[in-house]
Amino acid sequence: MKKFMDRDFLLTTKTAQELYHEAAADEPIFDYHCHLIPEEIAANRRFSNLAEIWLGGDHYKWRALRSNGVDESLITDADADPYDKFLAWAETVPRLMGNPLYHWTHLELQRYFDISDPLNRESAPAIWKAANEKLEKDPALSVYGIFKKFKVYGVGTTDDPADTLQWHEKIQNAGKTETRVLPSFRPDQVIAIESPGFWEYIRRLGSATGTTINSLPDLLRVLRDRIELFDRLGCCSSDHGLEYPPFDELWAAGAAKADDFGEREAAEAFNLALSGVPVEKPAQESYKAFILAFLGAEYYRHGWVMQLHFGALRNTNSRMLAALGPNTGFDVVHDHRLAEKLARFLNVLDVRGKLPATILYSLNPKDYYVLGTLMGSFQGGALSASGAPGIPGKIQLGSAWWFNDHRDGIEEQLRILGNLGLLACFVGMLTDSRSFLSYPRHEYFRRILCNLLGRWTEEGEIPHDLPFLKGMVRDICFENARRYFKGRRYRRDPPPGSDAGSLPAHERSQ
Amino acid sequence: MKKFMDRDFLLTTKTAQELYHEAAADEPIFDYHCHLIPEEIAANRRFSNLAEIWLGGDHYKWRALRSNGVDESLITDADADPYDKFLAWAETVPRLMGNPLYHWTHLELQRYFDISDPLNRESAPAIWKAANEKLEKDPALSVYGIFKKFKVYGVGTTDDPADTLQWHEKIQNAGKTETRVLPSFRPDQVIAIESPGFWEYIRRLGSATGTTINSLPDLLRVLRDRIELFDRLGCCSSDHGLEYPPFDELWAAGAAKADDFGEREAAEAFNLALSGVPVEKPAQESYKAFILAFLGAEYYRHGWVMQLHFGALRNTNSRMLAALGPNTGFDVVHDHRLAEKLARFLNVLDVRGKLPATILYSLNPKDYYVLGTLMGSFQGGALSASGAPGIPGKIQLGSAWWFNDHRDGIEEQLRILGNLGLLACFVGMLTDSRSFLSYPRHEYFRRILCNLLGRWTEEGEIPHDLPFLKGMVRDICFENARRYFKGRRYRRDPPPGSDAGSLPAHERSQ
Amino acid sequence: MKKFMDRDFLLTTKTAQELYHEAAADEPIFDYHCHLIPEEIAANRRFSNLAEIWLGGDHYKWRALRSNGVDESLITDADADPYDKFLAWAETVPRLMGNPLYHWTHLELQRYFDISDPLNRESAPAIWKAANEKLEKDPALSVYGIFKKFKVYGVGTTDDPADTLQWHEKIQNAGKTETRVLPSFRPDQVIAIESPGFWEYIRRLGSATGTTINSLPDLLRVLRDRIELFDRLGCCSSDHGLEYPPFDELWAAGAAKADDFGEREAAEAFNLALSGVPVEKPAQESYKAFILAFLGAEYYRHGWVMQLHFGALRNTNSRMLAALGPNTGFDVVHDHRLAEKLARFLNVLDVRGKLPATILYSLNPKDYYVLGTLMGSFQGGALSASGAPGIPGKIQLGSAWWFNDHRDGIEEQLRILGNLGLLACFVGMLTDSRSFLSYPRHEYFRRILCNLLGRWTEEGEIPHDLPFLKGMVRDICFENARRYFKGRRYRRDPPPGSDAGSLPAHERSQ
Repeated sequence: MKKFMDRDFLLTTKTAQELYHEAAADEPIFDYHCHLIPEEIAANRRFSNLAEIWLGGDHYKWRALRSNGVDESLITDADADPYDKFLAWAETVPRLMGNPLYHWTHLELQRYFDISDPLNRESAPAIWKAANEKLEKDPALSVYGIFKKFKVYGVGTTDDPADTLQWHEKIQNAGKTETRVLPSFRPDQVIAIESPGFWEYIRRLGSATGTTINSLPDLLRVLRDRIELFDRLGCCSSDHGLEYPPFDELWAAGAAKADDFGEREAAEAFNLALSGVPVEKPAQESYKAFILAFLGAEYYRHGWVMQLHFGALRNTNSRMLAALGPNTGFDVVHDHRLAEKLARFLNVLDVRGKLPATILYSLNPKDYYVLGTLMGSFQGGALSASGAPGIPGKIQLGSAWWFNDHRDGIEEQLRILGNLGLLACFVGMLTDSRSFLSYPRHEYFRRILCNLLGRWTEEGEIPHDLPFLKGMVRDICFENARRYFKGRRYRRDPPPGSDAGSLPAHERSQ
Repeated sequence: MKKFMDRDFLLTTKTAQELYHEAAADEPIFDYHCHLIPEEIAANRRFSNLAEIWLGGDHYKWRALRSNGVDESLITDADADPYDKFLAWAETVPRLMGNPLYHWTHLELQRYFDISDPLNRESAPAIWKAANEKLEKDPALSVYGIFKKFKVYGVGTTDDPADTLQWHEKIQNAGKTETRVLPSFRPDQVIAIESPGFWEYIRRLGSATGTTINSLPDLLRVLRDRIELFDRLGCCSSDHGLEYPPFDELWAAGAAKADDFGEREAAEAFNLALSGVPVEKPAQESYKAFILAFLGAEYYRHGWVMQLHFGALRNTNSRMLAALGPNTGFDVVHDHRLAEKLARFLNVLDVRGKLPATILYSLNPKDYYVLGTLMGSFQGGALSASGAPGIPGKIQLGSAWWFNDHRDGIEEQLRILGNLGLLACFVGMLTDSRSFLSYPRHEYFRRILCNLLGRWTEEGEIPHDLPFLKGMVRDICFENARRYFKGRRYRRDPPPGSDAGSLPAHERSQ
Repeated sequence: MKKFMDRDFLLTTKTAQELYHEAAADEPIFDYHCHLIPEEIAANRRFSNLAEIWLGGDHYKWRALRSNGVDESLITDADADPYDKFLAWAETVPRLMGNPLYHWTHLELQRYFDISDPLNRESAPAIWKAANEKLEKDPALSVYGIFKKFKVYGVGTTDDPADTLQWHEKIQNAGKTETRVLPSFRPDQVIAIESPGFWEYIRRLGSATGTTINSLPDLLRVLRDRIELFDRLGCCSSDHGLEYPPFDELWAAGAAKADDFGEREAAEAFNLALSGVPVEKPAQESYKAFILAFLGAEYYRHGWVMQLHFGALRNTNSRMLAALGPNTGFDVVHDHRLAEKLARFLNVLDVRGKLPATILYSLNPKDYYVLGTLMGSFQGGALSASGAPGIPGKIQLGSAWWFNDHRDGIEEQLRILGNLGLLACFVGMLTDSRSFLSYPRHEYFRRILCNLLGRWTEEGEIPHDLPFLKGMVRDICFENARRYFKGRRYRRDPPPGSDAGSLPAHERSQ
């Protein structure tokens, strides 16, 4: 019997252990998509207790607590005693066996706090005390300390186009961390023409740029400006949360065949929205399709990566939305069909030679076969308007995301990606997290990856060629993402001569 | 090599074996959803031969026989020789390797008849003889004998609102079994406004209560009365078979925002149906959505559990429907989308504080991620109008059901439930069966559960804490269901002072 | 650690090894659905180098090369140097670990060329040289040599109704191979009324039969004639590629209740198409549903197998379609719903007693539960107008197809088929391939099958009854398909007295 979550956690073969410890464990982390708060990074924030850093904003844990029948007052009530909240969590944890939160919790205790006891009601008081002492005193438990301890090469935060990016600017000017803190462009509110707050948002977006947006051309000009600003601050990635690809109504009707992606229809819808007239669904989708295509072409021009996240149905519980707002644990997996509309969208960009590097995510694993084959139909073109053609894995199947981010989901995504495409090209893991305690999720992913390759090796399915396999592991853990996201452009590093990154790791190590 | 289906069947680790034999095997069975016939229970029926008890009403086996090319005359013809039917089955069984019927068949032979030989053409004559002797003589092979032998704490039969529940009353008055025989409320015919027999059914429902239903308020009054009757006889659960959640048309239009769930539109549709006018699809759905919401609120008032079964497309073979009627083996897995409509339905009840404890089942495993995350969005409220708030696992992802009820399907459901929620809160297995021979399916489920936990333990994924794990096993096998379905209210037992059940088993055993 | 792809590749237990080597390995191959080119078979073609035979027409490999960033000029450019193409492939192969192409590539090198080194940049020159020498000199590397070496009992090519079948006639007249080269009837273009080339195709179909098609009755007469021709040349199978079952619009409206499958509506749509008027979607579907049902009844009359392939979304990349044409690696997995429409279609044929033996394939594994249960609702009827009733497995869940044709996909299909039906009745594997190098995919399938049965045996889930299991393996590898496709009718063999095939293998071997 293996010991509980020891050094070889999830590594069931000798080859897996060698791959993990010798190739994966020490690779830097490029957490290219997360929800860290730039202001907290700029402040190099420290946390006063384990409840604050662990339970403060983590709606994954809140869901688990509610599922266990814990009263909401011990979950999100700002006035509740932090220790009571922590205790509710400690009592819930043993009942989470089978859930990734169980593993994440103990990885976090081990890696951040050197605590290897299982958390439960009995161990709670001692763990509370020990962890809080470390939070207070350990220099490694500030934001920058954490970045350093976990070799965080870069993080991609999630930022609204109306954001001033002042905190990013401060972080970069201060130069107090080696970690690249990169903004990511998330224009969901630009696209949500059906939202009651749309007009208000557009007004705010105009203000942020010292202008007034009175027409679609105004909006496009502002978006181009914002993209320039994001780009200057190192942004190399956009991010879109979409229930489904809104591309049918308009483009089936042929409007998208026009070189302008149907700008006329989009402008009509936009003008209606601005004048307060409700916009019908087909017109909404015309607008959305146009904006997405317009942005996709802009991303291509800048060599950015376009991330498309499909399949979340948000804010399903209106009572709790009213009480707590969005992103508090009431989103679910959606079940739209994706194939036809998404194929049409990618094709509209590709046929004009404007398809950027793209990562396709779905929250519903039923979509992996659709996305994993769509991926294969749009590979191989240029990466940007100015880029060299032919990068491996231009289109990616995104990492197991959110509700799929667990042992089984990660292995499923890796296997399907391997079966449908080239696992070796995969840009790997991201946390998608709001917490500074989430870096062990990269470790979790890496262990699962190494275990899969180790098993294949020991079963004779692939050759026992450790140098090659280690290169492949390093690529997937870090190097592929570094190349894919142009991370090294940021702050003009690495210095000339040191760029081993121009060759894939698996080639360097051969 | 392990012996064929021996004591450690499906238990591949020592921990799994300990968990199963020491914690799971002896737990009582609460078969909270089945299709046993109350009249047969009241009669304490015995069966004259193995064909009758095994093949008499089991459309799972009928499908398998047809798939093997057996002529229908040996499957459902009442005049066929029982031994010939049995022989056709015996010849089919070896060809069912890979199908759960193969395991169920041999578990049933072992547990009911002490026969451990594999069934096939050669062993058929001896097995026929030995089993029939036991059926004739063994006191344990009456209905009540079976209940006792398998420690059946309770069964939830499936009953129409028009049913008099006379057999339930007789069973309870006779007091010849310790097993709680509880009716469950299954108003599918109340909801099926599109059915040609709807009006006739409504008339019959009225007659059953000595009244005439001339309007929707009449119907609602009758439904309330029937719910009271069911409740008096220990009912703690309803059950709905739905192709999909019929909640879009009406509620998207806002009618459901009214406090009455759109009663006006429902009444219009109901009046049309009563006057023989065909009801259009949107009006059908208005009616259905209203009735379901009305009933959901009633269930909440009584502290009942609402079971929603989605995803069966029934009676696909019209030739065989004409010949044999429904439930004869011609239903299939459907593939509707569920997320949006079901989210809206649950929310409409929740926002009014009227959402009962609910189990979400789908026949299509593609829905598990949708249901398993929807579950998490509506946890934690009160269980009934009068109940204490905050029960663990108020909303449940239902057990692997019907076509999913097999080794792979059960493990898939357990893993997904664990990954998305709290496995420890799961109310566990049910047979959904028409047969008194199906109790080994609980054993089957328990072995798979223990094997999963055993594997995790031996791989170091969870701590080797046997007392805790045994408690968790006992909870999932029995205690969670007992608490969830208020089973102990029935016939005012257990006596005061003996209620160990007020604590979860995992806490008692620590 | 097992050696890389050795004799026991994929066989992880002793029982699996025994089953494979003693029962599966030497069974003949009936590759009942492939895309070999009859002209190349008739010519007994040889290939001048490894690039030609391996990369010439294989869009699976092209996709992989594009995914690895290889320039299109090294993929499909006819003028590129064959060695350069081969080298691009050799460099891509190691990066395909996790993809079935990795295993197929090495199985092909081992079985056709006696080369057991892993292919990569370093080994490429030597492999190129050795393989090309064999291609030049080895008599086993002509088409007929390959057929003989791999014991290919029969192949089912894919042929358009307008095809003259001249090459099939030549092959059969020449009698130079023992392998049955059977045409299969693939009338996709007859059905594609929405296609711009539809009218042109109908004209060509008329010409091929020396007539002019001016009406639907003309078309039906021609189709009946062509079916007769195909039948005379040994055809026993049709094949349909369908995005989804087009059966709702018409048949929901009741037209299909008429005994003619809605011929009147179909004729209207056909006449419109012939007169150049665009046909609306509902009318298109009326036509398609009618033709499919008409053809299904014809197949039944001839005792043919109807193969329905669902779920491919084709030609998603319009830029590459313009450059390279169809079937060049730009198709993806679709995600239509299938259950309701397909159930209705099968029922319409069944209720008239005209449902042929049918294989249901989907490219999207989310459909397996739908297809695998639909299968069970239409079993057991006669196989043809003249055939004996009651063949086991009349309706089949098709083999893991195309994007699912890999280790994980094959095991998933086998498990689901087993759980929902009778694995023992399965007609087994096909290559669906354009290449003469694909026969090791049968070996791949057989190893996975034997491994699954071996694991179940060693875990005690099924009895350790090797004679029975070997019979089951032989049935699935070959005998079931031979019986199912009437293969032995072709050229009136086997001679009287030698027909061991009249009993299933598992009965012979007992």
